[in-house]
Amino acid sequence: MACGSQHSQNPTLQTPSTGPHDVRVRMKAVGICGSDVHYLKTLKCAHFVVEEPMVIGHECAGVIEEVGSDVKYLVVGDRVALEPGISCWRCDLCKTGSYNLCPEMKFFATPPVHGSLANQIVHPADLCFKLPDNVSLEEGAMCEPLSVGIHACRRADIGPETNVLIMGAGPIGLVTMLSARAFGAPRVIIVDVDDNRLAIAKNLGADDVVKVSIDIKDVSKEVVEIQKAMGTAVDVTFDCAGFNKTMSTALSATRSGGKVCLVGMGHNEMTVPLTPAAAREVDVVGIFRYKNTWPLCLEFLRTGKIDVKPLITHRFGFSQKEVEDAFETSARGGSAIKVMFNL
Amino acid sequence: MACGSQHSQNPTLQTPSTGPHDVRVRMKAVGICGSDVHYLKTLKCAHFVVEEPMVIGHECAGVIEEVGSDVKYLVVGDRVALEPGISCWRCDLCKTGSYNLCPEMKFFATPPVHGSLANQIVHPADLCFKLPDNVSLEEGAMCEPLSVGIHACRRADIGPETNVLIMGAGPIGLVTMLSARAFGAPRVIIVDVDDNRLAIAKNLGADDVVKVSIDIKDVSKEVVEIQKAMGTAVDVTFDCAGFNKTMSTALSATRSGGKVCLVGMGHNEMTVPLTPAAAREVDVVGIFRYKNTWPLCLEFLRTGKIDVKPLITHRFGFSQKEVEDAFETSARGGSAIKVMFNL
Amino acid sequence: MACGSQHSQNPTLQTPSTGPHDVRVRMKAVGICGSDVHYLKTLKCAHFVVEEPMVIGHECAGVIEEVGSDVKYLVVGDRVALEPGISCWRCDLCKTGSYNLCPEMKFFATPPVHGSLANQIVHPADLCFKLPDNVSLEEGAMCEPLSVGIHACRRADIGPETNVLIMGAGPIGLVTMLSARAFGAPRVIIVDVDDNRLAIAKNLGADDVVKVSIDIKDVSKEVVEIQKAMGTAVDVTFDCAGFNKTMSTALSATRSGGKVCLVGMGHNEMTVPLTPAAAREVDVVGIFRYKNTWPLCLEFLRTGKIDVKPLITHRFGFSQKEVEDAFETSARGGSAIKVMFNL
Amino acid sequence: MACGSQHSQNPTLQTPSTGPHDVRVRMKAVGICGSDVHYLKTLKCAHFVVEEPMVIGHECAGVIEEVGSDVKYLVVGDRVALEPGISCWRCDLCKTGSYNLCPEMKFFATPPVHGSLANQIVHPADLCFKLPDNVSLEEGAMCEPLSVGIHACRRADIGPETNVLIMGAGPIGLVTMLSARAFGAPRVIIVDVDDNRLAIAKNLGADDVVKVSIDIKDVSKEVVEIQKAMGTAVDVTFDCAGFNKTMSTALSATRSGGKVCLVGMGHNEMTVPLTPAAAREVDVVGIFRYKNTWPLCLEFLRTGKIDVKPLITHRFGFSQKEVEDAFETSARGGSAIKVMFNL
Repeated sequence: MACGSQHSQNPTLQTPSTGPHDVRVRMKAVGICGSDVHYLKTLKCAHFVVEEPMVIGHECAGVIEEVGSDVKYLVVGDRVALEPGISCWRCDLCKTGSYNLCPEMKFFATPPVHGSLANQIVHPADLCFKLPDNVSLEEGAMCEPLSVGIHACRRADIGPETNVLIMGAGPIGLVTMLSARAFGAPRVIIVDVDDNRLAIAKNLGADDVVKVSIDIKDVSKEVVEIQKAMGTAVDVTFDCAGFNKTMSTALSATRSGGKVCLVGMGHNEMTVPLTPAAAREVDVVGIFRYKNTWPLCLEFLRTGKIDVKPLITHRFGFSQKEVEDAFETSARGGSAIKVMFNL
Repeated sequence: MACGSQHSQNPTLQTPSTGPHDVRVRMKAVGICGSDVHYLKTLKCAHFVVEEPMVIGHECAGVIEEVGSDVKYLVVGDRVALEPGISCWRCDLCKTGSYNLCPEMKFFATPPVHGSLANQIVHPADLCFKLPDNVSLEEGAMCEPLSVGIHACRRADIGPETNVLIMGAGPIGLVTMLSARAFGAPRVIIVDVDDNRLAIAKNLGADDVVKVSIDIKDVSKEVVEIQKAMGTAVDVTFDCAGFNKTMSTALSATRSGGKVCLVGMGHNEMTVPLTPAAAREVDVVGIFRYKNTWPLCLEFLRTGKIDVKPLITHRFGFSQKEVEDAFETSARGGSAIKVMFNL
Repeated sequence: MACGSQHSQNPTLQTPSTGPHDVRVRMKAVGICGSDVHYLKTLKCAHFVVEEPMVIGHECAGVIEEVGSDVKYLVVGDRVALEPGISCWRCDLCKTGSYNLCPEMKFFATPPVHGSLANQIVHPADLCFKLPDNVSLEEGAMCEPLSVGIHACRRADIGPETNVLIMGAGPIGLVTMLSARAFGAPRVIIVDVDDNRLAIAKNLGADDVVKVSIDIKDVSKEVVEIQKAMGTAVDVTFDCAGFNKTMSTALSATRSGGKVCLVGMGHNEMTVPLTPAAAREVDVVGIFRYKNTWPLCLEFLRTGKIDVKPLITHRFGFSQKEVEDAFETSARGGSAIKVMFNL
Repeated sequence: MACGSQHSQNPTLQTPSTGPHDVRVRMKAVGICGSDVHYLKTLKCAHFVVEEPMVIGHECAGVIEEVGSDVKYLVVGDRVALEPGISCWRCDLCKTGSYNLCPEMKFFATPPVHGSLANQIVHPADLCFKLPDNVSLEEGAMCEPLSVGIHACRRADIGPETNVLIMGAGPIGLVTMLSARAFGAPRVIIVDVDDNRLAIAKNLGADDVVKVSIDIKDVSKEVVEIQKAMGTAVDVTFDCAGFNKTMSTALSATRSGGKVCLVGMGHNEMTVPLTPAAAREVDVVGIFRYKNTWPLCLEFLRTGKIDVKPLITHRFGFSQKEVEDAFETSARGGSAIKVMFNL
């Protein structure tokens, strides 16, 4: 086949040959994502179902071992972070700048495509981004979850005039907070039901935190508390939880003419006060993965505008025993934010 | 008071004096809006409550009888359509181009501000728009409901590349359809539960119509029918009804990366599949009234790109008996699209 | 080579093999562009220089004779219009939605890439657009020059609220006028030095025309005449000539906060009143070719919103004698707008 | 008259009465702008001509001595920075969010409107912005020049992905640099002919500086040096000088698809390679003053994202002798960046 990246999906897991625009990467750091845990435990995630044995993993970085004949900007030995999705570049969405929405996307660890928790991967060179000298392989692997925050901030047009509210202080809430900060948000308030998570968020740079309940009846009372903590208008809210209650709070707390960005996926169907929000021209924007985010992630990591190291709470090797422990740790949550394999 | 427009709110209904930037207009045509009927029957509409006697009416046109000393572009005798809301021009929303969201807006027939169903109105000259010679006073009054469609089309960025689906063939669905057409939408499909309304919509220019049920269980089946009727991707959906079912259909039928504009206000709280839509980056935008729409309305009417005359189905004079009949007709719905007073 | 489209550049002009995502097209209609004439007469155009024998032609349509194994939407016998440029889809500009600016673009008849004035072409299927039944092959070939107008209108954000001035009534001025009209521009005024061209423009739909001189000293006088002919603010000006005088007129005639789109390339270095325009926030935007325009062109042709047939003024066959006559006719200008080969 | 701000234009310089939405401010800090010096020396600036005695000054801050009856957010004793222009809020440009382009703007020290170098000013309350506790009156007066940089950054859409080149390290170049930095520009390179200015720019935060000549023949050589200093693509260039040479460099150095923002006004008519830039879709955007910038300026000053104190190089009192010295110092340039009166 013309495209090496398709070869890498070979179910026998033999390393495919390296096409002219591909590179072969030895994996060095792979993070565990919630979706990986889902696939492992239930063999599905959202509407995707695993029907044949599938390698998981899509947050990864490694070292180049071979470069294709037409690759210009990478050489053997380069340390790179991998963007995991290969789009078709032939459909309207690809051609008009929305390749993340490509219906033919081949994405690591999304059935039936294998993931990156493997020794070697053959991948298109233009999806492998050279790490700056002061960025580690682990940090490189963190570009993937960070990209979600970056893409959300771009979609919500965050800048130095956008005061930001974040619903949920889990891993995605935290990367969104770090991203909003890096985009210049003057004030970032984060909300959660868990004191420990709020303490971490405060520590990582939230201007203020608000503890809330899980009772939907508390929404209006909590909106008042949140707006008081903000001290000024809430321009944009990221709902990084995605439940009826968090979205109701988001829609109500955001100022007229502001935006709510729905990032989390707690509830599929939602019961929320959408009409009053629409009648204040509060727009709701969603995100699907990301596009063109790796260069910006690496620039934020290089300059220190974002520090992802505190998010990596647990590290494991690649023995059978350690792999089991790693997934167990990730599934348990608690103090675990990001669990990382060092291969 | 400094601003003549505030004088017009005088509860004694004496005609206020005309300030330097105001004009005095003799009302000639006033349409009845659903909100007028609501106020008349229930003394409230949405969260607005009528607490003192209030003149209703806000779809209006008339003839200028007096111009203020600093008014440049209007003279006595000019026929004008009136934009009914006076914003403060001192708040952030006004200054940044969103005057429709001004929290200090004084709007005809929104308590405690009187409406325009009166003999004379004193109004800021810059909110009175001269009618082209070939546009009647009745058509001028129609600029108000038409403005809702225009503003919705602008918010959803309608143009010659946007295929449009409209949920609901009532008066607002129809003005939105006419607007989408005038903005160049190549294909417009309209959906309703009522055969008669669909026939009117077809007659007024819909490319195709789809009859649907009120049963939420039919959503997925009807989405297939709608997409088949469209024959291509649904780029933008206007939900001009605003019920759980219409919004569920809108969110499901719109293509990835498209937009749903929520115009109707059937349900306040909504139970809808918001998350799957967000995960396809289908954005939800709302509207509140309109801004800067009168010049474009009048241009569309002048050039014939939009013809609102078929929407004016009933006309009444201003005797006590006729007024009662008019509101009765408007409240009854049925074949009545727009009921107009000729004063 | 991996990509069939590169094969088609084979200097021996043997028909290359058809890759899995390619189609082989028998050429049926090819228009002559000014750049073709330049290459033929001077062996260069702008900064591009012809160093080896090169087939010219890039405005073309034909019939599919073979489809690659992975091609889904086309079959043998389909009549198609060809988008002539193949971009890399690996660079930042491609990935962020600006593939027309791709530095690795391979474009028909831009050295060293062969053009389409050949019997057969192998081309990527996603750059071959099926013609609607009521659109002829000749009209299909016209999608290329029309795309310039479409792209210019998109860059200048033309819609039903944009009054348009066009400097220059040559072929590019005319396609820009037709495009602006199709995007809904309420009023289009066109300017030229030549009465005959102005008559054609008037005939093809200009609301009014203004004859101007070539003397730079007449700019301010002519700006007054142009603004009078417009009758309202000039929101956007397309300079389809690109000379000091036309650009000076464009910058001066456009309203504060408006746009000038520079399409023509008469002068390379320009002496123009840029500062006073910038100080009125009149932006200057340029264009390079086009992107994603074929589907919209074909929709405009199908619905009759644009009729390009009157632009095709001369037709030739493909004998040696006729080819010479064709280029001679095109080079001479005069009444020739578009010269078309029927193969 | 209804609007106190108009009273303040009284040529007899008596303090006008304070209207309901006005405040009376005792001036405390007034900076000298290049335009003030122009008016003083030549009685004109650009196309504005002084025909009657006019108070100059428009960079100012003071303390509120009286508030109008309807003023809500300010009280006597508040320290405020003044936005100097009062727009009409009745024209299309005001209503559509471009009040800075209002043709009826009344602006401090733009003939025939008096400036703010006076003891007291009556001004609309919504144009007086309360200083945070940690922002001095002098810094408040600096909001005016800083606003030029802020507005330029907004027009060019500066953010964490925009590498910025600045032509000219004078006062406007420096405030633009500080603004670009505050908007998150990852890399800012500044260019000038003067070593001393470059040293100041480096000190204030430029990543690198490039010394250039005034010889137009050096453009291509210097473009290479500039691009080398940038080390990556130049996404946006601000020409804060506005000469043929600076603009030629700007147009050539900026990447395809990037932007040049013309801020300086050195030459009125310009001879520049506009066509090759347009053919790479390098857009040219201009600025006129600013809009809605004071709140952001004050936020940047409060948080320390921008420090304007190093720009205030000279301070004077308000005796006849000191006033003369102050203007002399400002006119001389050299080490003087901003000259400030403390009243």
